[in-house]
Amino acid sequence: MISPDVLTEFQDVVGSSHLLVDPGMRATYEVDWSRRWSGDAAAVIRPANVDEVSAILSVCNRHKIACVPQGGRTGLVAGGVPYDGAIVVSLERLNSLGPADYDAGQLTAGSGVSLAAVQESAARNGWEFGVDLAARDIATIGGMIATNAGGMRVVRYGQMRAQVLSLEVVLADGSVLPGSGLAVKDNAGYDLSQVVIGTEGTLGIITAATLKLVRALPQRVTALVGLDSLAAGLSLVGKLRRGSGGLDAAEFTQERAMDLVCRHLGRSCPIRRSRWYVLVECAGDTDPADAMLQAIETAAVPDEVAVAVDAPGRQSLWQLREQMPEAIARLGIPHKLDVGLPFGKLDDFSRQVGAAVTAATSPASEIFLFGHLGEGNVHVNVTGVSADDERVDDAVLQLVARLGGNIASEHGVGRAKVPWLHLVRTPAEIQAMRSLKTALDPNWILNPGAVIPLIDQHPITATVVSNDDGIGR
Amino acid sequence: MISPDVLTEFQDVVGSSHLLVDPGMRATYEVDWSRRWSGDAAAVIRPANVDEVSAILSVCNRHKIACVPQGGRTGLVAGGVPYDGAIVVSLERLNSLGPADYDAGQLTAGSGVSLAAVQESAARNGWEFGVDLAARDIATIGGMIATNAGGMRVVRYGQMRAQVLSLEVVLADGSVLPGSGLAVKDNAGYDLSQVVIGTEGTLGIITAATLKLVRALPQRVTALVGLDSLAAGLSLVGKLRRGSGGLDAAEFTQERAMDLVCRHLGRSCPIRRSRWYVLVECAGDTDPADAMLQAIETAAVPDEVAVAVDAPGRQSLWQLREQMPEAIARLGIPHKLDVGLPFGKLDDFSRQVGAAVTAATSPASEIFLFGHLGEGNVHVNVTGVSADDERVDDAVLQLVARLGGNIASEHGVGRAKVPWLHLVRTPAEIQAMRSLKTALDPNWILNPGAVIPLIDQHPITATVVSNDDGIGR
Repeated sequence: MISPDVLTEFQDVVGSSHLLVDPGMRATYEVDWSRRWSGDAAAVIRPANVDEVSAILSVCNRHKIACVPQGGRTGLVAGGVPYDGAIVVSLERLNSLGPADYDAGQLTAGSGVSLAAVQESAARNGWEFGVDLAARDIATIGGMIATNAGGMRVVRYGQMRAQVLSLEVVLADGSVLPGSGLAVKDNAGYDLSQVVIGTEGTLGIITAATLKLVRALPQRVTALVGLDSLAAGLSLVGKLRRGSGGLDAAEFTQERAMDLVCRHLGRSCPIRRSRWYVLVECAGDTDPADAMLQAIETAAVPDEVAVAVDAPGRQSLWQLREQMPEAIARLGIPHKLDVGLPFGKLDDFSRQVGAAVTAATSPASEIFLFGHLGEGNVHVNVTGVSADDERVDDAVLQLVARLGGNIASEHGVGRAKVPWLHLVRTPAEIQAMRSLKTALDPNWILNPGAVIPLIDQHPITATVVSNDDGIGR
Repeated sequence: MISPDVLTEFQDVVGSSHLLVDPGMRATYEVDWSRRWSGDAAAVIRPANVDEVSAILSVCNRHKIACVPQGGRTGLVAGGVPYDGAIVVSLERLNSLGPADYDAGQLTAGSGVSLAAVQESAARNGWEFGVDLAARDIATIGGMIATNAGGMRVVRYGQMRAQVLSLEVVLADGSVLPGSGLAVKDNAGYDLSQVVIGTEGTLGIITAATLKLVRALPQRVTALVGLDSLAAGLSLVGKLRRGSGGLDAAEFTQERAMDLVCRHLGRSCPIRRSRWYVLVECAGDTDPADAMLQAIETAAVPDEVAVAVDAPGRQSLWQLREQMPEAIARLGIPHKLDVGLPFGKLDDFSRQVGAAVTAATSPASEIFLFGHLGEGNVHVNVTGVSADDERVDDAVLQLVARLGGNIASEHGVGRAKVPWLHLVRTPAEIQAMRSLKTALDPNWILNPGAVIPLIDQHPITATVVSNDDGIGR
C-alpha cells in the first residue's frame, strides 16, 4: 500500500480529481478487454501532460513504487492491468492532436488519442494512417506504439513501429526524451524512440508521437475466397503481393469460426462452405479487380468467391472478420493466444492444435482459428475450458515453439506470456533485454513483471497478477 | 599495441591469411571514402562467419581491446576507420545471400553483401529493394544497417531501418542474438534488432539481416524541374507525395552545384539555368507522367522541365545528381556535412550558410548544396579551405542547430560529429545512450569514441582519430 504522504505528493501533481483511490472510481482501470485479466491498483493517476507524467515518475522512482502505464485497455495479455501495490498511470488525458505537416504527411498525436481520431484527421487532409484494427475507437496511439500493434494492414504498411517517426518519452527517473518532432530524418545518435517501441511500458512512458501518414489510394476491392488449404491461400497472397495495385490485407478464418460468426450476425456466409476462408483486399490508383480475380481463379474455383467493390459491400465482408472475437465471446471468456508460425507450418499447426489442447485439458475444449495470413499470424481462441486453465496456454505455446513459430506475434508478451518467453528467446537475448531494462529503469518501477521474467535480485518484489478468480500466477 | 599472444588468439580463430598486421596489407582498411578520415589499425581481422565474429569479440572483451566493425568503407564520418590501438573487424567475407521467401517478399543477406547484390537478387525474383544510393556497388548491407542509411528512395520506403525484419547480432561479450529469421512478425520481448540499427557498431556487430522487399512498379517517370525557390519545390513534393503513382524520389541541387556537375560530365544542363533544380521520380502501376506534369506546371514554367520516361533518359538525369560528389571532389577534399533542416527553414539555411562559413574561415571557401528534399536533408560540401579546418564544421553545425535542424540526417555521427552532438541532443538523451552502451558493452570495446562522447571513467582510453595530417581531435 502507498502511504498517505506519497498520495499527497501525487495529488500535488495532478489535483485530487485525477488521483483515484476509491475502488468504485478505480474499477474501470483495473480490467482489460480480455475479461481474463484484472487486478487491484493502489491508485489510478491521470496526468494531463508530459510535465505531470515526469513529476509522477519522479515520485514513483524516489519511493520505488511500481507503475503500470495504461492506454485504452484493449490489450489481451495483462500488460496494462494493475496488480496489488502498483499504481496505474492512465494516459487518456494526453489526447490532443497536432501539430501536423500535410505536405510531408506527418501528424503528431498525444499518447491518449484514439486510433480512430488519427485515421479521421489523416483522411480529412487527403492521407490515410497505415495501421487499422477492430478496436480503433478505443485503442490509443500510445498503447499501440508500446505494444507495436499490428492489425489488418501490416502486409502493406508494417506494424506501428513503421508508422513512428519520433516519440516523446518520459524515463523512469522522470527525465524527458523530447524526440525529433516533425520533419525528421535524424540519425544524431541512438534512436531512443525505436528502443522504446514495443517494450510495453517497461522502458519509458510514451507521451506523444510524430506519425508518418500513407497515401490514400482511390480504388479498393475486397474479396472473400473459399479454399481447401492454407497453402493455396499463401500462394494467392504471394501473387497479390506482387500484383497490380498491391495487397492491403490478407486475413484468414477456419470453417468452424466462420460458422460461428455467421450465427452471431444472423447472416448466411456469402460463399459456400469451405475448409478455409481468405479475405483479401487490394488497393491502388486504378481498379485492381481484374488482376485480383485473375490471381484468385488460379487458387480457387470461381463460385467460391465473393467480390465487393463499394464501401457497404466491403464493410459487409469485413464484418465477418471483425466480429469474430465477439462471436466467440458469446461462448464464454476464451483463452486468446496470438502466435506466429512459419508459412510452411501453418497447415501443420491447424491440424495439430486441437488435439494438443484436448490432450492437455478436456474433450469439451473447442478451438477457433483466425488471423493475418500475410504474416503467418494466428489468433487461437479456446473455449469450453476454465478461463484460468494455463494448461491451454502451455499446450498451444509449446506446439508453436516445436514448429519453429513465435509465442507473441502482435499482442505482445504482457504478464500473460512471460512464463513461456524462454521457449522462443535464448538466454543471451533475455539477458540483453534485462540489461536494457536495468540501464533505463534501475529500480524496475515501470511495469515490472511484464515482458521480462523478474528475478530475486530485482528491487521491486515480483508481485503477481491475478486472474478473475484471484488465483495468482 | 596488441601483444603477440593475443594476435595468436586471433590467428587461431581466422587463420593467418585473414589476420592482417603488415601495414601494406592493412592500408586498404584504414581510410574511408571521404579521404578526410584515416587511422592506423593494430590489426585487421576478416572473420568468415558469425562463429568467428563471436570468437573474436570474446578475445577483445577479455583483453579490453577496442574494435572497429567495418563494412564497405563508404562512410563519411569516421565511423568505420580505425585509430591507434584498435583492431578492424571487416565483415566483407560474410557475403552470402539467402535464404529467401519470394512469396512473402523476404531475403536474408550476410552483412558483407553489397547493396547492388541485394537489388539484383530482388529484381531477378520480381521484387525491388526499398533503399538505393550511389555507392550501391561497394556499400554493404551490414554497414548500411549500422548507419541506418538513407539515399534516394526514403521519401517512399523509409531508411534502412524500415527494410529490416530481423538481424543476427554478436554482442561485445561474444554472445549471439540469433534474431527471428524469415517470416517474422514477432513481438516476443524487446526487438533487439531495432535497438542495434543505426548505432554505428557501438552496441553489437551485425552479421546477417532478414530484409523486407518492396513491390516492383512497372511505370516510372523522372523529371528535372527548375525553380526559383525551395518553397516551390516543397509544394511540388507535397503534391506528388499524394498524387497518382506516388513519389519515389525528390532530390534537389543548387545552381552552382549543377554548373559544376555539368562541367565535370562535359554536358550542358537539359533545362535553362535556375536558382534551384529539383529531380523528382514517380512510379506506379500506370503511367504517372500526366499527373506529374500537372503538378509541375503549377510549380514551374513549362520550359524549365525535362521529362524522361525510358531507362536511358532517366539514367541521364540521375547522372546529374549521382555524379555530384565526384564533381566536387575534383576541387579537392571537401568538408562533407550531412544535415537536416525543418522544411520551413531550408531557404534560410541556404541563404545563410555561405556567409557563416566565410566568416568563420576565409573568403576562398565555396559551398555546394544538394540532397534529399523530401526529408529536408542537405549535403553541405565546402571546398577552398583546409580539410582539417574544424571551423567549417562548427560554423555549419551551429547554424543548423540555431535553425532547429539536426546535425546528422543520414550519414550518422561517427567520430567526426561527436563534438557537436550536444547541440541537438539533451543531456538526458545523451545519458540514456550512454546507459544503453554500458548495458550491452560494459567495457566499451565496440567502436569506442563513435556516436557518444567518451568520458574519463570509461574503461577504454579515449584514443583519438587522426586527420590525414595526423592532427588528433
